[in-house]
Parts: sequence; structure tokens; C-alpha cells
Amino acid sequence: MSTAAQNVPTPSLVIDEERLDDNIAGMAAFAARAGLALRPHVKTHKSVEIARRQVAAGAIGITVATISEAEVFATAGMTDIFIAYPLWLDDDKARRLREILQITPLLIGIDSVEGAARLASGTEGLTNRLSVLVEIDSGHHRSGVSAAEAGHVASAAAGLGLDVVGVFTFPGHSYSPEKRQAAAADEMHALAAAVAALAGEGITARIVSGGSTPSVEFADASVLTDLRPGVYVFGDAQQWELGTCSPESIALTVLATVVSRTPERVVADAGSKALAADRGAFSTGFGRLLDHPEARLSAISEHHVTITGLECAPGTRLRVVPNHVCNAVNLADAYVVMREGQIVATWPVDARGRNI
Amino acid sequence: MSTAAQNVPTPSLVIDEERLDDNIAGMAAFAARAGLALRPHVKTHKSVEIARRQVAAGAIGITVATISEAEVFATAGMTDIFIAYPLWLDDDKARRLREILQITPLLIGIDSVEGAARLASGTEGLTNRLSVLVEIDSGHHRSGVSAAEAGHVASAAAGLGLDVVGVFTFPGHSYSPEKRQAAAADEMHALAAAVAALAGEGITARIVSGGSTPSVEFADASVLTDLRPGVYVFGDAQQWELGTCSPESIALTVLATVVSRTPERVVADAGSKALAADRGAFSTGFGRLLDHPEARLSAISEHHVTITGLECAPGTRLRVVPNHVCNAVNLADAYVVMREGQIVATWPVDARGRNI
Repeated sequence: MSTAAQNVPTPSLVIDEERLDDNIAGMAAFAARAGLALRPHVKTHKSVEIARRQVAAGAIGITVATISEAEVFATAGMTDIFIAYPLWLDDDKARRLREILQITPLLIGIDSVEGAARLASGTEGLTNRLSVLVEIDSGHHRSGVSAAEAGHVASAAAGLGLDVVGVFTFPGHSYSPEKRQAAAADEMHALAAAVAALAGEGITARIVSGGSTPSVEFADASVLTDLRPGVYVFGDAQQWELGTCSPESIALTVLATVVSRTPERVVADAGSKALAADRGAFSTGFGRLLDHPEARLSAISEHHVTITGLECAPGTRLRVVPNHVCNAVNLADAYVVMREGQIVATWPVDARGRNI
Repeated sequence: MSTAAQNVPTPSLVIDEERLDDNIAGMAAFAARAGLALRPHVKTHKSVEIARRQVAAGAIGITVATISEAEVFATAGMTDIFIAYPLWLDDDKARRLREILQITPLLIGIDSVEGAARLASGTEGLTNRLSVLVEIDSGHHRSGVSAAEAGHVASAAAGLGLDVVGVFTFPGHSYSPEKRQAAAADEMHALAAAVAALAGEGITARIVSGGSTPSVEFADASVLTDLRPGVYVFGDAQQWELGTCSPESIALTVLATVVSRTPERVVADAGSKALAADRGAFSTGFGRLLDHPEARLSAISEHHVTITGLECAPGTRLRVVPNHVCNAVNLADAYVVMREGQIVATWPVDARGRNI
């Protein structure tokens, strides 16, 4: 069964299974110590096998971003599923959502009265199978309402017949080396204020959900009940450069081959169609090399990544750490799973492209 | 058969078929007027249907980036295929390349003696079915050798039994508003010098291939024999902002729905898993809105794009022009094809994910 890594075609997603299991166990232990429930975000890995391992390690359920991700994981038998997104239901999405609700109850995000009204009307007859959480903007300024508005949205949703069970936020402004702790403080402050706003309307927030991977270590169980980090299962170059993970814990790399070289640079075959084109303001480049931390990925195009600070011959294989692992995973159909240098399995990226 | 656009789920890739056909016809006419052969790069669309239209309009063949793209298009019956990439053949890639060569002859890029040697040994018995072009670095500083080195690589490749038929370059530094014309001049200069270098080794460059979409209008038929632009079939926000296409010619958009709104911004459901995360130094944001050119796509995450300068209600549908259409197409499984506001077909993205 086992095959040497040298035969893996490039570019390919490669999982270090021991590191993956360590990361899953580590976050589960952290949540248990903190007294918090864990509903990991599976948009990172889109894999039923990995979601099952997260649940086996203690996660009480999973978080997804889209109806089509929920379809994949509900069909695979996962039960406690949170669609942490302010869905806007058109007729087709309403039909698909009703089909999922016939398989399993759902938690769903809302951030407007209009969206809540469509959710209620679109799930008629099955509305008792869903619970909603109001999304709060804790400083990332993406979707979500202010804590002050949360009471109004919650109250209106309840008036529409929806079961309002809590609040959630994504502190995306934690993706900055100096701001991780401050973003976590913003997150706790906004969620606490939102809980109070719901209470003012007579609604108890039983679920208070937060926790991006960069901010999770600052989670405050006096405010939160739930964590839903995603990237921690693999780590990536963003987390490495944020200081949220060490390179020794990174469980996913894109295996690449050097195809071209000059005295100034080498070029490998993992471009933006393998790594994705993400680059944060704080990033040193378009990813990192796991075994050559001093090298820099200075440019990327679809099928080329240009590397400086590395000398090697054409044909050399490199383990590239993508900047944003969620987007890299979504580009591939399968993972190659390695243990002790041998291929032990291939796993499908079950929800690859299920972004609708 | 026809269905209104309002029923298309979001985010989805939508083609304006009339614009697509106009763009295909326009480039074919340009190449014919210039006396240049057209081998369009199909990595942009990854669609057999669109490649067939390009050939029907006068393209003499197609260009691909990977062996797996070549597999898709050769199996579909395309014949004149150029893999414009300095392939490094491992055992698996050599086996797959031999299988393609049994279907159709190929043109293949080389940029090193080592790569050429693997190409010769990996295709043993079928080497007479392939021809090679030496890749030249004309200023983009990615793969490719200098014009001065081209003679050495060509001569060594010929000595290995490969049929060296020409040179090619990608002037990627044309992706800058002020540098398009200068990059095209670099391209012509480098290719002319490379042709001379091959001649010095007694090798005639029968094919001299260039032409990125931004530089193609400056193509000089006294140097070039072939063009291989890709993006022109659709256009995208990069080309729009470079001034290479007008918004009225853009044939592909990502249909999105507004899911969230505050007084400062709206958020729609086309994030980096639908648009890709590309952003050039010259870009105004993470894409553009075709119908609201004044709006700015100021931030992107996987399932959200944040838009400023636009007021609209939740549920509004927007036509988003991705920055880099090649990477957006590679994220989807199918195109929705519209003509006069009606859906007339869906086409598979045949080579989606075929990047190995």
C-alpha cells in the first residue's frame, strides 16, 4: 500500500497525518480545559474524514459557510451543523435548505430583518428544525450588525417565528501580528454587549460563538460558550507569520517541483492555481517553504512560483506552505496523506467547490 | 429551455455569449490582419466548447500550461497543442505525456538542458512526435533563459534528438498600465535576439511565439510568427484597469447576491472562493462591478466581498468582474451561458483543476 513521496505528482496537497491528529487533539484539549464547546469550521479542509476526527476528539458539531457545504456534511451523517453566514434565500437555496433540514436540524446566521424574514418564509413547515444566531460585527467590518442593533434583529426574528438562540462573530481583524490580542478583546466586548442587548428583549443567548484561529488563545469563557476555529487543523504561512502556529506543527503542504533556475531565482510548479493568490499585508511573500524558512516566495502566477534565497537543482521537490490554506485546499480534488514518509491514504476534498 | 437570470444560484460564472463570440472573432481578425498565427491559451477558459469556437474562427491550434490540460483537450479531439511550460518529467508525467503523444503531436517548452534531457528520455520511442520551443525571459524574470543562452539550450536539445522549432516568451511585465508598450518592445527584442542565437547554432526558428493579452496590440510580425493570448476571450478587471479591454466587451462575470448591508458598505456572496484573491499593484480593489464602475471592492474573504460606494438592498444581484479571470474560472465546475438575458446553455469547465 505504501508508496514513497517521490512518486506523488506535483503540485499536490500533502497531509502529515500525525501533525493533523496532534492539531485536532490540541484544540480539543484547549476547548475542554477552557470549558468551551468546539464547532470547528470545516471550510478549511472540506473533508468528511477530518470532520469525523474532529468530532471523535470532542467537537460537538461543525461549522460551514454555505448551503452546499452543509449538504455534503449532512449527507455524510454529521448532525450538529452551524451555517455561520447570513444566508439570503432565493427559491433554489430555500428548496435546498429545506432538504437539509429534513436530514438534520441546523443553526443559521442572520444579520438583517430582511434576511431573517426570507429564512422564515423559505423554510415554512420546517422552521422548527432551525435555530438562528445573530451575527455581530466585532471590528472586522464585514457582515454582522453592531451589538446595539443585535436586540432589534433578534426581536424581529423571534417575531417572525424563528428560534433565536444566540450570537456569533468573526474577529477577522485578528489577522495582523500586533492586533491579535486586541481583536480578541474587541470580540469579547462586542459579544458581551450583544448578549446584553438580546437580554433586553427578553431573549437568552444560549450560544455565544467566536474564535478565529489567531484569536482563540485569548478566548474568555465568561463570555463565550463556543469556539469555531478552522485553520488550526493544518496551519499555514499566515498563521506561521502571525505567530499562531510553529512551522513544526504545519500539517499541510503543497508538494512542488523546481522546473527552472537562474543564479538569481528558482521557479517551482505550484502557482496560484495550487496555492491560491492570497497575500496579507504582513506576509513576506506568497507562502513559505517548510524546509527553507529563509527563502522568499517573491512572485506568483498561475503555474509558477518564483523563489529567492534558495539554491537547488531543477527537479528538486519542495514543500510549500500556502499563505491561506482554506483557499489552497479548495483548488484540489484530493489529499495525499503521509505518515512517516510513506503514503498511507488519499482522501477526497469532499466539499471542493461547494461554495454556493 | 430559456430561464431567467434571476434563477441562477449565486455565486456563479456567467458568460455573455455574444460578447464572447465578438472577442473571439476580434482577436482572430487582428491576427489575420497582422499575418500571425493564433494559438490561444486555453488555461483562461478550460473549455472545449470555447476552444472549438476559437479554432472555428481561425486559430491554428491551442496553448495549454499543463500535461493534464493537454490530456483534456487532446482527448476532446484538438490537434495542434502547445504546452508552453518548461515541463520537468517525473516517471508519472512522462507516462502521461507519452499517452498524449500517441493521440496527437505536441509542441513543448524547454528552458534548461536538464529539462530537455528528461523530455528526450521520458518520451523515448515517441520523441519524433514532439517539437520543442526554447523559453526566453524577456523581462518578466520568471522561467526562461536569456536570449544569449538560448543558442546553447537549443543546440544541446537538438543534440539530445529533440526537434527544436523555435522560441517563445511571456512578457508578464506587461501587466502594468505604463509598461505595456515597453514590455512588448522587450518581448520583440528578446525574441529577435534569441532567433539570432539559434541561427548561430544552425537552427532555424520556424515558430516565434509571444503575445500576452496586454501586449498583443503591439505585436511585430517582422519578429513574431505566433500569438498565444488567453484572457481576451473574456476580459477581466485587470485588463479593464490596464486599458486593454473596455467594460462593454467583458464577457464573463460572477453573479453575486448582496447578503449584508450597513450605511458604510454592502457585502455580497462572491468571495475569494468564487473570484480568487488576485490583486495587482495597480488594481483598485478585488475586482469591479460591471454595472457600477464607481464602486470599489475593498476587501475579500472566502465567502464575502466588501463593497464601498454602492447603495443597494439585501438580495440585490450584482455582476462582479474578477480581477484575474483565469483563476476565477478554475474555481467553478460550470459556466451559465446567457444570450439576450436568457440562459441558453451550461458548459462544463472541462479542465477545472487540471493543473498537474
